[in-house]
Amino acid sequence: MSETELSAHIEGLLHAMPPVAALQPRLTELDDDRCNLHAPLAANINDKGCAFGGSLVSLMTLAGWGLVTAWLERRGIQAEVYVADSQVKYRAPLYDDLDARAQFAESFAADAVLRELGDKRRVSFQVRAEVRRSDGRVATSMESRYVAVVPDQIGPE
Amino acid sequence: MSETELSAHIEGLLHAMPPVAALQPRLTELDDDRCNLHAPLAANINDKGCAFGGSLVSLMTLAGWGLVTAWLERRGIQAEVYVADSQVKYRAPLYDDLDARAQFAESFAADAVLRELGDKRRVSFQVRAEVRRSDGRVATSMESRYVAVVPDQIGPE
Repeated sequence: MSETELSAHIEGLLHAMPPVAALQPRLTELDDDRCNLHAPLAANINDKGCAFGGSLVSLMTLAGWGLVTAWLERRGIQAEVYVADSQVKYRAPLYDDLDARAQFAESFAADAVLRELGDKRRVSFQVRAEVRRSDGRVATSMESRYVAVVPDQIGPE
Repeated sequence: MSETELSAHIEGLLHAMPPVAALQPRLTELDDDRCNLHAPLAANINDKGCAFGGSLVSLMTLAGWGLVTAWLERRGIQAEVYVADSQVKYRAPLYDDLDARAQFAESFAADAVLRELGDKRRVSFQVRAEVRRSDGRVATSMESRYVAVVPDQIGPE
């Protein structure tokens, strides 16, 4: 799969989920180190005129999921990727469009991940995500653990 | 405000937020100790056919927000209530409709909260929320801190 096809694949998966399509997310950057998603404030606004906390968490969770899914796809690994736990800090209200940026935690070691996935067909990824305001201040940050599971057999014989 | 009016007020606030209306939430229980919200799986489904993590967090966050907002309203206190941080654990996939239940943490002490709010016009609430599956197993749990701030003056002179 080319990088363009991979981006289209990830964006297609996002828009196929009704609660995600409602956020109107757009994939703005995707490579081996980062996944960035943009969403308009108007579709994600709360009663106080700023971004709804649930939308912020959703977008960051999806950015992390896209990061891990694409990283695996690039290596020919088709796995189920799901979020296992998250710690969220809402630091400042956001009155701008939402730009969620996800990257692997500093401890990330590709070789160790691939070895564990080969041995156990299951591995965890630590991911950091954040949304910044246009003035550079962090609006919301999140540290999450994702789990990837490779089915013993994909599809029928 | 009667309890019926209070429920209608909370539900009206929910449906006025576009990203929340998309989840199709319904207030199923609201009293001084709990706030429960229901949402259909179809509006909140992910690519794996189970509930989307972002929807689970959104619904739990809103249930906690409704609990705190209603608790304050019942005491004649109009405050801005927002979530400050959350720890989320995704324990098991949910293939049922979403029922989020929020209640105050065990440490909750109404007298201390009211005293602090009177002194500082600002106070934190610890809230626990969860979504259970129809087999009784916890699908997702969340511990959150909400902050309520009473403006120095509400409305014009």
